[in-house]
Amino acid sequence: MRPPEPARLSLNQITVPTLTLPEAVEACVRHGIGAIAPWRDRVAEIGVDRAARLLRDAGLRVSSLCRGGFLTASSAPARREALRNNRAAIEEAAALGAACLVMVCGPPEGRDLARARDDIARGLEALVPHARATGVRLAVEPLHPMMIGERSAIVTLDEATELAERFDADTVGVIVDAYHVWWDPRLDAAVDRAAGRIAGFHVSDWLSPTTNLLAGRGLMGDGLIDLHGLRDRVERAGYTGLIEVEIISDEHAKDDPDDLIRRVVQRFAEFV
Amino acid sequence: MRPPEPARLSLNQITVPTLTLPEAVEACVRHGIGAIAPWRDRVAEIGVDRAARLLRDAGLRVSSLCRGGFLTASSAPARREALRNNRAAIEEAAALGAACLVMVCGPPEGRDLARARDDIARGLEALVPHARATGVRLAVEPLHPMMIGERSAIVTLDEATELAERFDADTVGVIVDAYHVWWDPRLDAAVDRAAGRIAGFHVSDWLSPTTNLLAGRGLMGDGLIDLHGLRDRVERAGYTGLIEVEIISDEHAKDDPDDLIRRVVQRFAEFV
Repeated sequence: MRPPEPARLSLNQITVPTLTLPEAVEACVRHGIGAIAPWRDRVAEIGVDRAARLLRDAGLRVSSLCRGGFLTASSAPARREALRNNRAAIEEAAALGAACLVMVCGPPEGRDLARARDDIARGLEALVPHARATGVRLAVEPLHPMMIGERSAIVTLDEATELAERFDADTVGVIVDAYHVWWDPRLDAAVDRAAGRIAGFHVSDWLSPTTNLLAGRGLMGDGLIDLHGLRDRVERAGYTGLIEVEIISDEHAKDDPDDLIRRVVQRFAEFV
Repeated sequence: MRPPEPARLSLNQITVPTLTLPEAVEACVRHGIGAIAPWRDRVAEIGVDRAARLLRDAGLRVSSLCRGGFLTASSAPARREALRNNRAAIEEAAALGAACLVMVCGPPEGRDLARARDDIARGLEALVPHARATGVRLAVEPLHPMMIGERSAIVTLDEATELAERFDADTVGVIVDAYHVWWDPRLDAAVDRAAGRIAGFHVSDWLSPTTNLLAGRGLMGDGLIDLHGLRDRVERAGYTGLIEVEIISDEHAKDDPDDLIRRVVQRFAEFV
């Protein structure tokens, strides 16, 4: 398969967690990377206005802002606070010119999984007017089922797309993150179904053995995911936008960031 | 919901991994448990004939034998060895009077997940005549997607049922293990579809947080799984057989076995 255009590479900031946003931006420029996905906590460290200026001055595109979501709180005050927080995230995404706001939808509280899923749908419904008015696309990210207890009751791409389909495609899309969805026997059909809704494509790799449920991802090429096959499918579904490299890893967090980014660029060309 | 009949409780031996099979059998008798699911390595310690006699003399039913499978080896000699080993497992299951042989189908070797799934189908096909001749039901167990790299390319109940449907229902069924399938947004429909194929129902609980991918299960009631709802669905699908309590847990392995079994019996009545 032909390698992806190098200009499609976007560095998700959590891949180099020891860097501040200004440092990560400088590193992108140094390595010829044209896009980045910042995290809100790192944006907050310098303020959203300064972050927006920094990104603009560096000429970086913003593939996404990480992240909104967590819409499953059951108490009324906690739900109100979650909506307030998500509206703030929407405004930050707009200010940064992010292509989308990643939505990690939240875990079930207790044993009622159907209720958690309903709460997520109602939460999105409440946020859509603000997203539409601000021109920010909400991108529902299905997470690997092993993360259901802490992060997301939305665990398959089909489910995320079904949720997104309640709204217009310009306002609510989905993220296809290879790490979260590669195991799914229905993946091909799910990607096809998501056509027109794919707001982002994220890559890393699934290591065997995987011993860390949250921060055990591998560099592309070090694991079991057929990233070529998945990119092909995603492109056939019409997505030709930025590809985020998002390696959440306690191990790689110890690497020298420049050395890691060099390998990211190489692996992107070879395995994505 | 009405508690399940106590006589439906079967103790999967791995719940009390410090006990030998004779010790586990004695513990079942002591606690009034009428069924057990032994593991092959523990059967081998005393030999299958002695194990069969032991179980018969104790009046215990055998809900399953754990386990066959691992059908994804790519080299011809490794495939032959896997089939030989599975045929031996089938004979052991017959000798023990096990209601089924649990099949953990094996992980992908490398990045070709579709091939692994094909290999599994071909492996089952090769084993079915022996299983049929011996009167042993093969029970395909879909495993949680976090175990795909080491244990099973079959990760959803739907996929397991689709695989089983290639064969007659008396020879190839599926296991519904709550821990492996509870997260699935299609679970209800998948259980319905598995009607007539359900060869076993296994229970434990999903803890939040889960920090151990292989041995981090909880006692029923300690986690997020709606076991009442799942039992109801499984029973509506026609399965009213034994219910295996299978708590694979490095933590509970340290408990006093008698104390743990007492809690298993209580939790079974309350949460299953």
